[in-house]
Amino acid sequence: MPVDRATGHARGKAEADGADAGAEIEHALAGRGIDGGGQQHGVDGDAVAASAAATAARGRPAGRLRSGAGFHARDHVTTSCRNNRTSPEDYPFNMATVVSLEGKRKAPSLEPLLSLCADDMAQVDREILARMRSPVALIPELANHLVGAGGKRMRPLLTVAAARLCGYAADDDRHIKLATCVEFIHSATLLHDDVVDVSALRRGKPSANSVWGDKASVLVGDFLFTRSFELMVDVGSLDILAVLSRASSTIAEGEVLQLVSQRDTSTPEATYLEVIKAKTAKLFAAAAEVGAMVAGRNGPERVALQSFGMNLGIAFQLVDDALDYAGREAQLGKTVGDDFREGKITLPVILAFLRGRTVEREFWKRTIEKLDQRDGDLGAGADADRPPRRARRHAGARPPLRRHGARCAGPLPRHAAQGRAARGRRLRDRPGALSALPPKTC
Amino acid sequence: MPVDRATGHARGKAEADGADAGAEIEHALAGRGIDGGGQQHGVDGDAVAASAAATAARGRPAGRLRSGAGFHARDHVTTSCRNNRTSPEDYPFNMATVVSLEGKRKAPSLEPLLSLCADDMAQVDREILARMRSPVALIPELANHLVGAGGKRMRPLLTVAAARLCGYAADDDRHIKLATCVEFIHSATLLHDDVVDVSALRRGKPSANSVWGDKASVLVGDFLFTRSFELMVDVGSLDILAVLSRASSTIAEGEVLQLVSQRDTSTPEATYLEVIKAKTAKLFAAAAEVGAMVAGRNGPERVALQSFGMNLGIAFQLVDDALDYAGREAQLGKTVGDDFREGKITLPVILAFLRGRTVEREFWKRTIEKLDQRDGDLGAGADADRPPRRARRHAGARPPLRRHGARCAGPLPRHAAQGRAARGRRLRDRPGALSALPPKTC
Repeated sequence: MPVDRATGHARGKAEADGADAGAEIEHALAGRGIDGGGQQHGVDGDAVAASAAATAARGRPAGRLRSGAGFHARDHVTTSCRNNRTSPEDYPFNMATVVSLEGKRKAPSLEPLLSLCADDMAQVDREILARMRSPVALIPELANHLVGAGGKRMRPLLTVAAARLCGYAADDDRHIKLATCVEFIHSATLLHDDVVDVSALRRGKPSANSVWGDKASVLVGDFLFTRSFELMVDVGSLDILAVLSRASSTIAEGEVLQLVSQRDTSTPEATYLEVIKAKTAKLFAAAAEVGAMVAGRNGPERVALQSFGMNLGIAFQLVDDALDYAGREAQLGKTVGDDFREGKITLPVILAFLRGRTVEREFWKRTIEKLDQRDGDLGAGADADRPPRRARRHAGARPPLRRHGARCAGPLPRHAAQGRAARGRRLRDRPGALSALPPKTC
Repeated sequence: MPVDRATGHARGKAEADGADAGAEIEHALAGRGIDGGGQQHGVDGDAVAASAAATAARGRPAGRLRSGAGFHARDHVTTSCRNNRTSPEDYPFNMATVVSLEGKRKAPSLEPLLSLCADDMAQVDREILARMRSPVALIPELANHLVGAGGKRMRPLLTVAAARLCGYAADDDRHIKLATCVEFIHSATLLHDDVVDVSALRRGKPSANSVWGDKASVLVGDFLFTRSFELMVDVGSLDILAVLSRASSTIAEGEVLQLVSQRDTSTPEATYLEVIKAKTAKLFAAAAEVGAMVAGRNGPERVALQSFGMNLGIAFQLVDDALDYAGREAQLGKTVGDDFREGKITLPVILAFLRGRTVEREFWKRTIEKLDQRDGDLGAGADADRPPRRARRHAGARPPLRRHGARCAGPLPRHAAQGRAARGRRLRDRPGALSALPPKTC
């Protein structure tokens, strides 16, 4: 099915399902049922991420970003996606996904990309379990609570998808080790984040710190950090080590920057973007970049995948932060309103404060700067003018989301196409060298 | 001055100073005044460490361990050292140090070894400051509070001393980077330890967590961890990366093991030794080992230095744990009694519980297992039979201290001697290759 036809098909289907513009962000992702418990239903910005990543792995444009009116403070910003799941046979050539920033439509899913990378991801799951082992029983117990039994594995998925996209076909498991390493870095930061943010829920379950206490979370987080470095060393590439160690250091820097910006309503949007680039997008970027590197593609493919990961990560975090005001706890699988309670400065607050009237600014100063929060402040009440409701209006953060979402679909398809062409040429030169890459695996 | 003469000289001087056997551990180390503030007076077990490390760097036996009576539960165990500081001219050939496990004598000092490695350690200080830099001001501010302005730099000192001992004479600064890396790993664990232990004092100053809060300490600790990996990558040796990443992972494992053993008075001594090997000694071992590796000595010297570091680290932690019961806060520069308040299981508690009568065991069960602690429990009162007083009697942990102290002086001198001989031979083969190693710098 040609791209345009697939797009049209998806749109038609979404409209038939009664999708329409709505007043709130209404997307949720059908989670991966790794443990079969159905507890992994989460969002984490996958509306953008899933479709863009799936598209990247296929080397096709991420679909059209619907043109919309200019951004106004009073817009009801909505973010949702269409997902055209065709039959598995169609994936190698016919996949295309519409990313829409307007309208209330069916949720997108990571499933297409996960199906394509299923074998690799099953290996990643096994490697994760193997590398969490320790004679100290609390380590696998706590780590498994977070890493083994949940999560969509977006970052390791990026690594294996990028590696396969770049024609990785070696018989070894270096891409699996790198993907595991990336997941461990992410998991370590989650454990420490939940301690820092005093979070009670993570992935629909009580957070590790609420079960085992802050001390255990800090120390097991350290263990996962260090174990990730052991994995990197196993891979045996100093260049890859440089990328991942730099990313880890940038993440830590971003977390500290976020901490010092906390409760400061005058934080500029640029600082916020620096924070999310560092604490989130840098690991997405590195995850995709090392996929190219392990496949031996250190030229334009590496640059393109790094850029793709960075923009995907930014879009991801924009949505994640929006959902803390606009999402629903049962769908997200994590506590809603944590950012507000912590006095964390995210884009909805920055925009609401910047564009708000005096009374609204006073509200933000009281609740965020002084952390003087009262029942109903979070918008549970019926008062339509309550500022968090206004924050919800800004939660979509449409212009930056559109910008970074579009960038995900920028140079990558071109390079992916070049990658496919190169693969074809190489196959002619060295039959069998890259043929181990089955069409169905990205 | 021959070794025996120097030893005799030191002993005579100590006796002239009125040193005599005492009922408590009474050693303190003249600290390094890096910031001139004199706030770095601490101990951390340097009684053993300073003399053994200094001796190792010189390739001479660590002195005599005085023979003593067998270990009895009611012994007043004491640990103190003599320090024979001869003139600087004597160091290359005439240094020897007596490590005594009995008697109340003058404090030892790291100064001799620091003087020998002064140039390298000044470079390490500069590298530490340079590598703490970040556009996020809180990072250097907090890190400098802990790393920049205090500490005896024992672990990096081990690295540069081991490298020089093994004839490292390259013009580059790889040994400096490794030493910095080792200090950063240590500092990161200190920051996290203080959060986990709720410590208020560190190196004679308010701990970072008590000034900036737990969140900042966790995150800046992460930053130092990751920055240490960047440094390792800079050095460019996968073998060294493997040693240090493994050490980091073992440290984290040891910290978790310590946490799960907390408040369990039935913890066996063997488990305690596993904990201190992992959380403390492993980094000492790695610090010394990578010194040999960076000097290209991957044979017996590497093994000997690794073993030396491991035993030194064990001895160091035994003393450190003893001092939490027997030390004095003003001398130590850190809170005394933290282990007791936290319900941490250390050797003094294990021995006091094991050898105690019913009433003592009840005391430990109440205070350590139930954390039901009352004023005076820590031994501030006048009751001579109060159990922590008894813990003090066990604080010296003489047999394991003697065992590991002796091991510090085991194979190393032989290998050091071989190293010197090899250096001589090499110098004949390749004049100038190792001659950049000045005799005065180890």
